[in-house]
Amino acid sequence: MASVGLVSPQRMHFDQPLALQSGAQLTDYTLVYETYGQLNSTASNAVLVCHALNASHHVAGDYADQPRSTGWWDNLVGPGKPLDTNRFFVIGINNPGSCFGSTGPMDVNPDPAKNGQPYGSDFPVVTVEDWVDAQARLIERLGIRQLAAVLGGSLGGMQALAWTLRYPERLRHCVAVATAPNLSAQNIAFNEVARRAIVTDPDFHGGHYQAHGVLPKRGLRVARMIGHITYLSDDSMEAKFGRRIRQAEAAGLPGEADGVDFSYSTQDIEFQIESYLRHQGDKFSEYFDANTYLLITRALDYFDPARAHGGDLAAAFAVARDKKFLLVSFTTDWRFSPARSREIVKALVDNKVDVSYAEIDAPHGHDAFLLEDPRYHGVMRAYFDRISSEVPATPLKAAGGAA
Amino acid sequence: MASVGLVSPQRMHFDQPLALQSGAQLTDYTLVYETYGQLNSTASNAVLVCHALNASHHVAGDYADQPRSTGWWDNLVGPGKPLDTNRFFVIGINNPGSCFGSTGPMDVNPDPAKNGQPYGSDFPVVTVEDWVDAQARLIERLGIRQLAAVLGGSLGGMQALAWTLRYPERLRHCVAVATAPNLSAQNIAFNEVARRAIVTDPDFHGGHYQAHGVLPKRGLRVARMIGHITYLSDDSMEAKFGRRIRQAEAAGLPGEADGVDFSYSTQDIEFQIESYLRHQGDKFSEYFDANTYLLITRALDYFDPARAHGGDLAAAFAVARDKKFLLVSFTTDWRFSPARSREIVKALVDNKVDVSYAEIDAPHGHDAFLLEDPRYHGVMRAYFDRISSEVPATPLKAAGGAA
Repeated sequence: MASVGLVSPQRMHFDQPLALQSGAQLTDYTLVYETYGQLNSTASNAVLVCHALNASHHVAGDYADQPRSTGWWDNLVGPGKPLDTNRFFVIGINNPGSCFGSTGPMDVNPDPAKNGQPYGSDFPVVTVEDWVDAQARLIERLGIRQLAAVLGGSLGGMQALAWTLRYPERLRHCVAVATAPNLSAQNIAFNEVARRAIVTDPDFHGGHYQAHGVLPKRGLRVARMIGHITYLSDDSMEAKFGRRIRQAEAAGLPGEADGVDFSYSTQDIEFQIESYLRHQGDKFSEYFDANTYLLITRALDYFDPARAHGGDLAAAFAVARDKKFLLVSFTTDWRFSPARSREIVKALVDNKVDVSYAEIDAPHGHDAFLLEDPRYHGVMRAYFDRISSEVPATPLKAAGGAA
Repeated sequence: MASVGLVSPQRMHFDQPLALQSGAQLTDYTLVYETYGQLNSTASNAVLVCHALNASHHVAGDYADQPRSTGWWDNLVGPGKPLDTNRFFVIGINNPGSCFGSTGPMDVNPDPAKNGQPYGSDFPVVTVEDWVDAQARLIERLGIRQLAAVLGGSLGGMQALAWTLRYPERLRHCVAVATAPNLSAQNIAFNEVARRAIVTDPDFHGGHYQAHGVLPKRGLRVARMIGHITYLSDDSMEAKFGRRIRQAEAAGLPGEADGVDFSYSTQDIEFQIESYLRHQGDKFSEYFDANTYLLITRALDYFDPARAHGGDLAAAFAVARDKKFLLVSFTTDWRFSPARSREIVKALVDNKVDVSYAEIDAPHGHDAFLLEDPRYHGVMRAYFDRISSEVPATPLKAAGGAA
């Protein structure tokens, strides 16, 4: 299927301060975003796609000046794809606090006392709700009073849910994939270990590493390796790597055999899974900001819409009673398991909400939400077809350059 | 039930080199061990207990000079306990490469070129089979030709299995709890992240940190936190900590409520699970040796008795056909799940081996093997009763000081 083609990010500046849940505020800030497809004349066909920890506004298409820069959800978003840019106007926004262009810890702290230094660890704590507030302002400035849908996976799914609670009048559908109503103790534990790896890296310098001309790459590598283990299912890791040994593969031998080389020291790489994880960690540490990692994992930890309702998730969703929902989970996702999605479905059903739920039998763990599984994409296509059928028929031009 | 009382470790020196699987050798070495109960006149009532990553020869009883020094499996081993020291002579041996008294990386490297420096990372790679060889020599020196049983949990269970393959004539029963026939890719992945945290700690100094007068405590802390998450079940972590917030608890407020304090920075502790994990990491980094951690996790990675048989585990166990086995697993153990124990049981059944298997419905994850669950201990008691009934009736004195 076709891509949306070459795309370019846009920037929008906001002078009015953004009040944050913490009580702090962003005095003025910039959001980077992308759009695909065309807004119809009634502005009723817009879909916002919210990103998770390691993604951005760059949802679909490619950049002209960067090889291999395909958007992170390009398999889902494009002309003729499940979220069809021939029908929908799709928006991706980089959240504040991130490190991909919107105002974040690497930007200059406007506080005069900071003498033009970057925010670093002084960037205020941001929450899922803060991100939704920032997104809502941008959507308003685009002239969209009501989104056809807000869509997200994982942490992005939490943002889609938060939209229905915070701005129920400004969207019709919520599509939340591979997500959870809050983090479990185990989820928080993994985040905490990753954070400890970062903040105890001697190059972290209390979060002001930029001022020291260094980056806490060691910590970021370990953090990413931990994260990566939780994104994959045990089964898919087994299928992909098993106990195969690295140099056996290099020598063209069957990996599972007598390839153990005890001359390897305890610090060397022996198994394929090791080199894979190290590679993931190395790559990540080259482009991701450590303070952003801390901020986003904290936002994950804090998300808990039931908290303000004494732990009653159904009470939290009472405000979203006339919204329509699609929830999707994946059987082998042990980070945000189907049971966590079912908690959300139950809270919605308790409110007699129009909710569809699909539990996809997929082997890829949490990562499945980013992959092109025919059953999963079939469900997404059918649901967006339904949303599309509700959008008043308004002439649309073809979307994107390559359409 | 009574304890074995006050105990003291003993030391045994070996002049004859220990040939290791790697091709290297330990020229001379010392093993630290403890015994409980009394060996009968036919030396037929001895049970060897093998330890896992973070344990030692100190299986049961207490040290006179150390408060809270109770042995790591004291709830199982003692007079009247499931492994009854009124009937059995129980032996715990600290494995070479460990950091609790037997020859290991913190000891002086006998290589004259090393000028009396500690081994550090030059300590040779040791395997489960090497440990079993070292244990077998000590058992022989104690005058025991055949052990009534070898018992172990987790990595200790792997040693118990290896005994049946390496010295089948020298034991009658193998009791392997919460173990696996090898590590999965996910198991190896967690080990690898822990190792990376250690070796990328700037205080690691290539494993020769002692020479630099420092310890890679940051890395050890992170390694232990990762390990700890894998020892607990998601459910037990949820039950124990949930999303409870630390200062809410301190203030006597219900933990789950409006206790979120956004003035906390991204580096502070907010949830109880965080302070618990940090505490575990801090404690561990005070007493555990980093090179030992690397060595033992490598031994775990390498264990794979089927490897020499083209991956056929049943073929591996053919040599142990006339041994008797008890396998025990725990439903919520996601580190070494019941499915992994069932692989072993199947390989044994394929050999028509006398095997008992108990899958205990326990909430505590991998840690369950160290806890006092009545169903679990009931199974262990019944099995050791059976072993005891096979031991020729020989007068035994009461065991231990407090019996």
